[in-house]
Amino acid sequence: MADAQWTRHHVLSLAEFTPADYDTVVQTAVSFREVLSRRTKKVPTLQGQVVTNLFFEPSTRTRSSFELAAKRLSADVLNFATGSSSLTKGETILDTAKTYLAMGADIMVIRHREAGVPHTIATELDRLASGVAVLNAGDGQHEHPSQALLDLFTLCLSLDAKNPGIEPLQGKKIAIVGDILHSRVARSNLWSLSACGAEVHLAAPPTLLPADFAAAFTTASSLPRTIVQHWQLAPALERADFVMTLRLQQERMSQHRLPSLREYHQQFGLTHARIRQCQPGVKLLHPGPVNRGVELSSELMDDPALSLIPQQVTSGVAVRMALLYLMGSRPR
Amino acid sequence: MADAQWTRHHVLSLAEFTPADYDTVVQTAVSFREVLSRRTKKVPTLQGQVVTNLFFEPSTRTRSSFELAAKRLSADVLNFATGSSSLTKGETILDTAKTYLAMGADIMVIRHREAGVPHTIATELDRLASGVAVLNAGDGQHEHPSQALLDLFTLCLSLDAKNPGIEPLQGKKIAIVGDILHSRVARSNLWSLSACGAEVHLAAPPTLLPADFAAAFTTASSLPRTIVQHWQLAPALERADFVMTLRLQQERMSQHRLPSLREYHQQFGLTHARIRQCQPGVKLLHPGPVNRGVELSSELMDDPALSLIPQQVTSGVAVRMALLYLMGSRPR
Amino acid sequence: MADAQWTRHHVLSLAEFTPADYDTVVQTAVSFREVLSRRTKKVPTLQGQVVTNLFFEPSTRTRSSFELAAKRLSADVLNFATGSSSLTKGETILDTAKTYLAMGADIMVIRHREAGVPHTIATELDRLASGVAVLNAGDGQHEHPSQALLDLFTLCLSLDAKNPGIEPLQGKKIAIVGDILHSRVARSNLWSLSACGAEVHLAAPPTLLPADFAAAFTTASSLPRTIVQHWQLAPALERADFVMTLRLQQERMSQHRLPSLREYHQQFGLTHARIRQCQPGVKLLHPGPVNRGVELSSELMDDPALSLIPQQVTSGVAVRMALLYLMGSRPR
Repeated sequence: MADAQWTRHHVLSLAEFTPADYDTVVQTAVSFREVLSRRTKKVPTLQGQVVTNLFFEPSTRTRSSFELAAKRLSADVLNFATGSSSLTKGETILDTAKTYLAMGADIMVIRHREAGVPHTIATELDRLASGVAVLNAGDGQHEHPSQALLDLFTLCLSLDAKNPGIEPLQGKKIAIVGDILHSRVARSNLWSLSACGAEVHLAAPPTLLPADFAAAFTTASSLPRTIVQHWQLAPALERADFVMTLRLQQERMSQHRLPSLREYHQQFGLTHARIRQCQPGVKLLHPGPVNRGVELSSELMDDPALSLIPQQVTSGVAVRMALLYLMGSRPR
Repeated sequence: MADAQWTRHHVLSLAEFTPADYDTVVQTAVSFREVLSRRTKKVPTLQGQVVTNLFFEPSTRTRSSFELAAKRLSADVLNFATGSSSLTKGETILDTAKTYLAMGADIMVIRHREAGVPHTIATELDRLASGVAVLNAGDGQHEHPSQALLDLFTLCLSLDAKNPGIEPLQGKKIAIVGDILHSRVARSNLWSLSACGAEVHLAAPPTLLPADFAAAFTTASSLPRTIVQHWQLAPALERADFVMTLRLQQERMSQHRLPSLREYHQQFGLTHARIRQCQPGVKLLHPGPVNRGVELSSELMDDPALSLIPQQVTSGVAVRMALLYLMGSRPR
Repeated sequence: MADAQWTRHHVLSLAEFTPADYDTVVQTAVSFREVLSRRTKKVPTLQGQVVTNLFFEPSTRTRSSFELAAKRLSADVLNFATGSSSLTKGETILDTAKTYLAMGADIMVIRHREAGVPHTIATELDRLASGVAVLNAGDGQHEHPSQALLDLFTLCLSLDAKNPGIEPLQGKKIAIVGDILHSRVARSNLWSLSACGAEVHLAAPPTLLPADFAAAFTTASSLPRTIVQHWQLAPALERADFVMTLRLQQERMSQHRLPSLREYHQQFGLTHARIRQCQPGVKLLHPGPVNRGVELSSELMDDPALSLIPQQVTSGVAVRMALLYLMGSRPR
């Protein structure tokens, strides 16, 4: 296990992550991926510790992935989901978090539809000197760090399955296509991919990609980052090594940001024909769940020579085990 | 543990089950029943393996039974239930299943309100050479194999508690009463009971039992099967060794298949008076949950000398442990 | 572990609890509190046993607390919640309980919005000689024993952290403020606190505290109990050692029992100013979730020198471990 260099307590945003941080996550995930290839896919690392999934926004996929990661580390898992909750009884989110703190939570995995909620909870838990670590599992349109880290791990494995690391990403062209403006996945990926030296190309219609979008990432940062914007698909795909499409939320139609799903697919949907512009050996990623025939064609999604989508899900468990391990084993 | 003869991968339907298959399930359930009689009712058989309950149709009873069976085999359990799910986000059922495959599921227990969904998923998982085993936990009006197998195990225990097996079922008269047309429980039981040599007598009003219903089971089969249809209750009960009543769905009234619950109970409801026509020592079964006073009288349901209903629930855990064990320990 | 004196099977009400019973719970909770201070907060006490949470009324906080307590005792936990349940299919509550009995439940933790349901289930389980123990996790406006026991443990720790016991409660003045009439928490606390020799002072508007309320507790009891009623806050707070405020349900307004939340807070809400009437060193309790600014001011709730609210939640896990341990390890 490689965690000597890990100095982070919470994982709320990737804005401040360094290449060394990314490498630590990738190398730790490599170890856990080996565990997952065994028949007994379980280690006693977090035995007796409690991982609480506080999902104020409904989710199955991400919650299941964290739940499985925690169970494979032998942690006890408490799931909280809005609905049958005290929130309907008027309790504040901070009070809910403090209740789970008082029950003995060691790590809180938090999803909320408003940006900043995991940060607010982490700040309060630090003020109370609780020692509890917070992992942002998606907050509004802000960030979704574990998704970007599993994407990164998937890319590293794709580039060098035997000895995965972040170095081969240097200079690679990665296109991110779709509703970038509203995507926490895109934001977290922008931080991670550019920090690892990839050239990130964004492609979306102007209503989903404001002209000054990339500037916020390049000017605010201490690392050099290459981010290029396009309002057409073609220049983003041209000689791209990887293409990442984002999920299109249906409500964008009612907001008049897009004329129709069909037109969106005609302009930004990925197909075998369009993919020919990319670098030979190009691979596709999608955070899921996919709207088949919208973000990409069904044929493309099911093409094992091109799609890394199943690998992303598999990487998700290993990367989340790595994160829970790094956060849970940090001395307090 | 007796599994040398087990050659099945998925359990989707009992149509092709042989007497040897039934005997393997019964003998394996006997072993697990012994485990359940200990103070520590747990074995490490499936430690580190993941059982995913994909319940696209709501259920408490069956889901709890599978969850407990899996936990007692030391498996990790992931519960998926429609509602907070990605399905509302437009993901296909196959994509949901493939997501859990990619997360590392070893066995998928699937319930869906449409017939054939577990089969479709199993076919796709086989096409992907996944090695994942699928257990049909009820698909529309098609089949509910684990329910019929727990019914079978309950009958075997009732006939010979010390040395349960399928042989004593030979020539026994078993009446199945109620909404046969819409019942997946009836269909699975028809396969299992007739294959084990029991004489199965069906009793229902004509709207719930078409004239050609039984033919589909006897003509399609390589085994000799005795299935007799009745549109009255009396001839089915006459000298019956066991009577199995089916749950009556309330919506049958609105579909005009039945005049009223009261009239149904008068014609097909079981009472102490009616049961006198049966063989002395007759026992009753019901898959639950029971509508007291409809399918059978409250007095009958609560009569421990006649009702095997609690034994069915207890058998359910042992039989599901047996199925998960047989499916999970098969070499890949 | 101190359980030689424990003779109770179910925990349905505190009406018959003796000081020796309270002391057994407190001393057992002390042991488990020590377990919770370790890094690996888990013991194998209930390994292989099944704790079923039957929550017919929605709850997150109490259900999570019981779930965590059970998991830390290494029990397997089955959660039942109304909604996706057979109850919507017409099954009776007793039949639901008997289904979980037949599945192999060892302890049932039951919450229901009607008073008496846990008692009814316990009576039926006893009639069946099941050996299953029932823990009332809140039934209507009747009782919530585990809440009162965690309150008691919190008071004992506050009075003597090193050597907690019930003796120091003798003669202490404890005010209970709020919607006493509708509160199961108040009722259980009335039994426990008065049995341990504390002077219990009730304060509420007359619509929430009938004149003869306390009489039911003092006349029915074999123990001497001191319970004093007030329709104003001031005399209850005067020189109080502890103040326990109750959650105010919003529906009390629509029932015309209270003019407005604001007026309620002006008359019965706790603030730093009001607390000055109490004994120096006074501490506050609240069963949660709190309506900030109604039952007590936000400032008071967040004042670590005054509020025992987080300690109550922490005590909850230790006390529930103690109860499950005492109930689960009783010879059958």
